[in-house]
Amino acid sequence: MLPLSLQKLINIFSKFPTIGRRTATRFVFYLLRLPNSEIKELLAAILELKQKIKICPFCFYPFENQDNQENKLCGICQNAGREKNVLCVVEKETDLESLEKTKKYKGLYFILGGTVASLKKQDLEKLRLNELIARIKNPAEFGIAADFKEIILAMDLTTEGEATNLYLERSLKFLGKKITRLGRGLPIGGELEYADEETLSSALEGRKEI
Amino acid sequence: MLPLSLQKLINIFSKFPTIGRRTATRFVFYLLRLPNSEIKELLAAILELKQKIKICPFCFYPFENQDNQENKLCGICQNAGREKNVLCVVEKETDLESLEKTKKYKGLYFILGGTVASLKKQDLEKLRLNELIARIKNPAEFGIAADFKEIILAMDLTTEGEATNLYLERSLKFLGKKITRLGRGLPIGGELEYADEETLSSALEGRKEI
Amino acid sequence: MLPLSLQKLINIFSKFPTIGRRTATRFVFYLLRLPNSEIKELLAAILELKQKIKICPFCFYPFENQDNQENKLCGICQNAGREKNVLCVVEKETDLESLEKTKKYKGLYFILGGTVASLKKQDLEKLRLNELIARIKNPAEFGIAADFKEIILAMDLTTEGEATNLYLERSLKFLGKKITRLGRGLPIGGELEYADEETLSSALEGRKEI
Amino acid sequence: MLPLSLQKLINIFSKFPTIGRRTATRFVFYLLRLPNSEIKELLAAILELKQKIKICPFCFYPFENQDNQENKLCGICQNAGREKNVLCVVEKETDLESLEKTKKYKGLYFILGGTVASLKKQDLEKLRLNELIARIKNPAEFGIAADFKEIILAMDLTTEGEATNLYLERSLKFLGKKITRLGRGLPIGGELEYADEETLSSALEGRKEI
Repeated sequence: MLPLSLQKLINIFSKFPTIGRRTATRFVFYLLRLPNSEIKELLAAILELKQKIKICPFCFYPFENQDNQENKLCGICQNAGREKNVLCVVEKETDLESLEKTKKYKGLYFILGGTVASLKKQDLEKLRLNELIARIKNPAEFGIAADFKEIILAMDLTTEGEATNLYLERSLKFLGKKITRLGRGLPIGGELEYADEETLSSALEGRKEI
Repeated sequence: MLPLSLQKLINIFSKFPTIGRRTATRFVFYLLRLPNSEIKELLAAILELKQKIKICPFCFYPFENQDNQENKLCGICQNAGREKNVLCVVEKETDLESLEKTKKYKGLYFILGGTVASLKKQDLEKLRLNELIARIKNPAEFGIAADFKEIILAMDLTTEGEATNLYLERSLKFLGKKITRLGRGLPIGGELEYADEETLSSALEGRKEI
Repeated sequence: MLPLSLQKLINIFSKFPTIGRRTATRFVFYLLRLPNSEIKELLAAILELKQKIKICPFCFYPFENQDNQENKLCGICQNAGREKNVLCVVEKETDLESLEKTKKYKGLYFILGGTVASLKKQDLEKLRLNELIARIKNPAEFGIAADFKEIILAMDLTTEGEATNLYLERSLKFLGKKITRLGRGLPIGGELEYADEETLSSALEGRKEI
Repeated sequence: MLPLSLQKLINIFSKFPTIGRRTATRFVFYLLRLPNSEIKELLAAILELKQKIKICPFCFYPFENQDNQENKLCGICQNAGREKNVLCVVEKETDLESLEKTKKYKGLYFILGGTVASLKKQDLEKLRLNELIARIKNPAEFGIAADFKEIILAMDLTTEGEATNLYLERSLKFLGKKITRLGRGLPIGGELEYADEETLSSALEGRKEI
């Protein structure tokens, strides 16, 4: 039977994304073996994170706001070089990171904060839908001189992502903007023999001249 | 040590696609347990296959040519309802099957018979490139009243498929036809977090209005 | 829609061990591409298998009986050097092969011909239980001067294997022989952290001096 | 480009067992979304861990030493019901946990603190070998009235585990105690067809009467 103070920390680590009890237990034993100096570093880094990092008032992306200035925008939002007519809605911060790495997208982002598995009220309330509508309608209010012509719904192609896409599409329709979704098709490395019919149909429809 | 007649058959089965020695060995023991009637059925089915099945003179797809008529075309090629202005080049027969299952493609096919890992002469000779060029230039010679405006290169997005695409593109360019490839993008079930940058770039570029 | 003669062969290959329809289809297209000489080789090898290979009257292992002599035993059974006091019962031919490769077992074998998922009558009838009992009781009747002191039940440690072990144990008990099963424990490469409790218990109980 | 304070924490989480940069990044975004109250809980739990948890002076297992008494032993070591003549050497804390779950082992433990990939000096120095020898020779010095007749080396059956076993065996030989290792064999769910020859040999040698 593990001591209570270990169990408490195992419970906390078990809630970390992708972590089960087995790995959470290994984390705790790892921390026990760490010298005190490294424990201090970890604690300091977590505190610093919460102190230095602010959430961008427009897109909800976390960034370092060193001068602690009110209503300061994140690096992408305040970048004059970004296109101000297209807004890409992503589920979570790491999806924004993934899209930035492609260096193909030059517009702005909005982090929705989740997906909906079903269309239950408590699921829907977790999404920043009202915040999204407000930013599309009146970006100036949030410090950005933009006029969005296109809203890209960049959700995963999972069941949850597709349900969220559908829900967003219905909820944003009244704004009269062009709404797009990511192109479907064969991924790099994909083989026709193992592709599902929907993916292959999309790959055929979306064929490109070379 | 397995008897020679077993080993001989294991060697033959080991050359079947996706089969290693372990599975080939299981095949042989499976055949040994089969009653003679089922062995006869297997032998008859293989013989019948080679006797009844002909290769379509236009697209190289195997089909049952029961009246054994000379130069008869396969079902797709002789179907008056198929579009006669687009030709889809696939690597192998099962890729044609996969595309047919989508029910989205209405044109004709051509089975190339392989891919090229490198651009070595012996690899290139395995492909039906001259046959492809002849059918694009003069389909009537092979029994089809077609006039191809677009050639779709429907290769896998693997290294071999991409190399073959490139080789075909260069080899077909002089014909002056529109050449297209399958659309790249996120497959059904795909997540942004695990997609490579090229796939994500394609998904962004190929985004569609909803 | 694939031609009937292709479908017939696909159906036959789909019954081969570990093969589904997708791979069976690839087999058929592979055969279609094979030159006639190699098709002939395949057919001849299957025929030869059924003609040359006989089943050992004692252990049911297939072997090449070239002089076609009645009641001839397989190589292992007629090997004077094999121990005649221990009999190892295996499910299938490849399990015998696996045990022979270890070069640790010097006794005789018996191929049971299957496992039982449940204890249903139709499942139990597939096993060569009566044949096994007859060979343990009176090996001389089957051409072997043996006197078995130990019967090893070398089943897989799967649910089916364990159920078969249990069934065999009960069915052979009345013979009054020592009945053993394979030792359980950590396999090579195994880690304590990922081992189930039963495997770990067995590894602890079966610990060996070094 | 992620802010420095995020990167610092990502670097720290990347050193956690089994965690790569991708998951470490998700951890950081997860922390950013956590309410302050839960961050405080996490920090408090880590601090509490380091304050309350002591390392057992005999076996090196971490335990809660609430009255902060000098040289207090862990629950297992001070349990009068445990057998005092057998010592089980494990690599790490979670291996001890795994063995305890089997409820089959009633002796004492010793946590070695690592394995050796090679027999390099810097690797060997990480192991608590001198500590182990001292505890076997004179357990009373560490608060336990024991007289070990058997030392179980319960290492993983990986290359590292086997090398460590070998090194321990050589290093402990001079003590004149019986040294054992975990039993090898087929694990639950294991199949003869996929077992390596060494595992099968062990399973044969370690067969048990039923």
